[in-house]
Amino acid sequence: MFEIDKNLKNDCIFIKKLDKSQLLLMNNSNFKWLVLVPEITNAVELTDLEFSEQIDILNEINIVAKILQNRFNPTKINIAALGNIVKQLHIHIIARFENDIAFPKPVWGFESKKYQPADAQYLIEEIKNDLKFK
Amino acid sequence: MFEIDKNLKNDCIFIKKLDKSQLLLMNNSNFKWLVLVPEITNAVELTDLEFSEQIDILNEINIVAKILQNRFNPTKINIAALGNIVKQLHIHIIARFENDIAFPKPVWGFESKKYQPADAQYLIEEIKNDLKFK
Repeated sequence: MFEIDKNLKNDCIFIKKLDKSQLLLMNNSNFKWLVLVPEITNAVELTDLEFSEQIDILNEINIVAKILQNRFNPTKINIAALGNIVKQLHIHIIARFENDIAFPKPVWGFESKKYQPADAQYLIEEIKNDLKFK
Repeated sequence: MFEIDKNLKNDCIFIKKLDKSQLLLMNNSNFKWLVLVPEITNAVELTDLEFSEQIDILNEINIVAKILQNRFNPTKINIAALGNIVKQLHIHIIARFENDIAFPKPVWGFESKKYQPADAQYLIEEIKNDLKFK
């Protein structure tokens, strides 16, 4: 039975279950930062997945990246699988803007600021709505 | 005619042309840090590529990640497409170790230390040798 890592649960807000992964919102209002967690027990490295599984995840990365692009028109999308702290395989998909607090540096290590619950809920509903058309 | 971005040329050492991309060594001996540059003119975002092109690049990411895993037995592989500074689409594939100077933080922003030319050449020859068997 697949379960999301407890650190990810703590840092993120659940958005929606996709076909092969769960989509989370990083609870940091400084960035438009989503996290895709493939529902594959014990996966740590991308190379732990069968290539067909990787292709399925790549498809969902595209879906999520395009939603961020279409909705927010960011300067750049950042996509990363790091996992130095949280081992469970998870992919960061982040809309970056020239005026965000970290740009052009990567987002990690910068100040985190939790969403107001209503703001998070509004954003989640927008993204869920966009996912309906994918 | 595809050409590697001048910043990447400046920061990296060419290793080998793969089927769909060029493989570079980041000239920073603090990390085992490779960079894969798809040979697709004007590509910036992953989503700029056809899905079939993305799958080809995913295959080469696997090849490179597995070489780092087999040769160096790292704690973790980090894979990232950021591109906030260098727009040309390029994918970082980095072998991370608990005792590297940045761990568990991402590598960006940490001190860079150029290879001694002979050390870089030795490492490049090792990786080229591993690529022969892929």
